[in-house]
Formats: sequence, structure tokens, C-alpha cells
Amino acid sequence: MNQTSPAFSVRVPDGDVLPRKVCDRCGFIAYENPKIVVGSVVRHEGRVLLCRRAIEPRRGFWTIPAGYMELNETPEGGAMREAREEAGAAIAIERLLAVYSVPRISQVQLIFRARLAAQDVAPGIETLELRFFGADEIPRDELAFPSVHWALDHDREAEAGAPPVPFGNPAGAAGDRMPDGRMLPVGEF
Amino acid sequence: MNQTSPAFSVRVPDGDVLPRKVCDRCGFIAYENPKIVVGSVVRHEGRVLLCRRAIEPRRGFWTIPAGYMELNETPEGGAMREAREEAGAAIAIERLLAVYSVPRISQVQLIFRARLAAQDVAPGIETLELRFFGADEIPRDELAFPSVHWALDHDREAEAGAPPVPFGNPAGAAGDRMPDGRMLPVGEF
Repeated sequence: MNQTSPAFSVRVPDGDVLPRKVCDRCGFIAYENPKIVVGSVVRHEGRVLLCRRAIEPRRGFWTIPAGYMELNETPEGGAMREAREEAGAAIAIERLLAVYSVPRISQVQLIFRARLAAQDVAPGIETLELRFFGADEIPRDELAFPSVHWALDHDREAEAGAPPVPFGNPAGAAGDRMPDGRMLPVGEF
Repeated sequence: MNQTSPAFSVRVPDGDVLPRKVCDRCGFIAYENPKIVVGSVVRHEGRVLLCRRAIEPRRGFWTIPAGYMELNETPEGGAMREAREEAGAAIAIERLLAVYSVPRISQVQLIFRARLAAQDVAPGIETLELRFFGADEIPRDELAFPSVHWALDHDREAEAGAPPVPFGNPAGAAGDRMPDGRMLPVGEF
């Protein structure tokens, strides 16, 4: 059992209209769909919780607690799980801050505003270090992904009184370039 | 080639923490993630566009133009594609109306408000019939899914001046029961 690997070719299955990956060994059709990332900007005493990534892509860079939504979760439940897994943090979700999309890697991100619901935090196995940053202390040159920049900016706008309408991608941004214009290779997302 | 079928067993792959479907024939790991449905409430001259479904589940029932988001789309682009495919409709997206989740079937729905951008519509192959309904004409007993009820209600609240904050599931609703309390079998979603 399980001594071979799948051998995919790309073709249009019977009754379908788009090409899909079909395994020539077993006939499995690997339907691929966009993935949902759920995460949160977690505030505590006026500062924001960031996690320094212990894993690739972007190991060593700072991010908000976020990750792939799992089966049978709600988005809010997924964001709470990610905060617990990556930062040992119990959080209270306040509202939906933003809906971003990164079409190049087929990703939709649902980012919530949240606050810390209990004092204790502790880095999970995917996290090297946790820190709370004030607005002027954010390590802008060491953020992991474009959408981390966006979420922190949008959270600050929300804090400053922007109406509670979720933000989307900044105008013209598709989520594959850092603020300095550098395009991230797909593997770095 | 492709003369057998996949033989999945459910186990935790090396380096993973959750059980996944692994094919005993080819070793393929079928990671399953929640799926994103994108759709729109399309207004035209004070009425709303509904499609009578030509396919299962819920053949013969009325729905808004909506379907699974495809790879490399934005949510807005996906909602526009679905309106084109199911109703031959060119639409202009106005804003995000609602974010619903149906955890039992691992679905997140992003529903937009839109207006018809060109007069012509024509049923696609998944649609038996198209019709524009005024608020009092909605065929409440013949709507396909709980979230169609929600979206039409929420669109009406938006039309009546509710602030432009996306709605979520009605309180306590998980999306698997019709308004009469009947639970839909999973195959009917």
C-alpha cells in the first residue's frame, strides 16, 4: 500500500468544462479550489500581537495569527483556533476587518479584529517569538506578506474611526508584491 | 490509464496532525478545505433576479446566481462569472452584502449586491427559467437554500438603509435548516 505516487495529467474529465488534474494510476480527479485563510489582528492594551514565523515560507518574518481554515469550522472559529495554535492566545472576535484576495495563489483571506481575552500567550510550534507592537513599533521591513501590511494599516484606520465596513485589497494590489514592489515567488506566500 | 478508482483510507500522514484521505493505490493525499461560494443579489428596476435550478441539488427551486469560486479568480470576478453562466447576465458589483458560513458542509459564501449592467439575460444550462421578482413576489416556499432566504432578506434590509456592513448568518443559524425548520440532507446543499 502507498508505495507509489500519484501520476497526474491535466485534462477535462467527462461532464466537466475545465481541465483538472486526473491521476493516471487511480483515476482520482483532484478538483482544486481557492483556499480560505482566516486570521486576526489581536489588540491588547493598545498594541498588536505579532508572531515571528518558525516555518517557511518567510521564516523569521512577522505575521498576524492566521492560517488555512479547516473543514467544519466557521471563519471566526478558525481565526480563534489559529490564534491559539500560533500564539497560545485566547481571543475575542470583534468584527470582520477585511476580505482580501490573492488570485495568483487562489487565496481568499478573512481577517478579523479581535482582542486578547486572557493575559497569557505562548509561541506555538510554528512561531519563534511573540511580541506586542505599538503602532509606531511595527517592524515594517520584516513583515511576512503584503496582506500583513494591509491588515495592520486597515486595523489602524479602524482604530481611528473608519466605519465598520470590511476593507478589501488596496487599489490595484493583487497581493503578490511587497510594499517595496518586490514580487514574492509563489513558494513565499 | 485511468481504469481503476482511488482507494482512500483515512489516516494521519507523516508530518501532519489531522487525519486526511490518503489513496492506498497511489499515495495521493487529498487535503480537503472549505469551499468558497460566490454569488450576488442582482437588482434591476426594483426587482431581484432569480434562477430556477435545472440541476440537483434542489432542481426546480429558485436561487440567486452563485457557485463555487474557481482558481485564480477574485470573489467579485467569480460572482460576475456565475451571473454570466447561470443567467447570461452582465452585472456590476456594488458591494459585499454578506459573509455566510455553513460549517456542516464546510462552505463559506461571499454574497454581493449587484445591479444588471445590460438588459439582456438568458438562462444558462444549469437554469430552467429566469425571472425578476418584486419584494412581495419572492417565491418563499420554493427557494433552494437557507442562505437564499438570508441573502434576499439582507438585501431588502440594505435597500431599506441598513449600514453597508456585511451581514452574517442569522443568529443561531448554521445554514442547514430551511426557515420551516426542515434540515436539508447534505446532498441537497
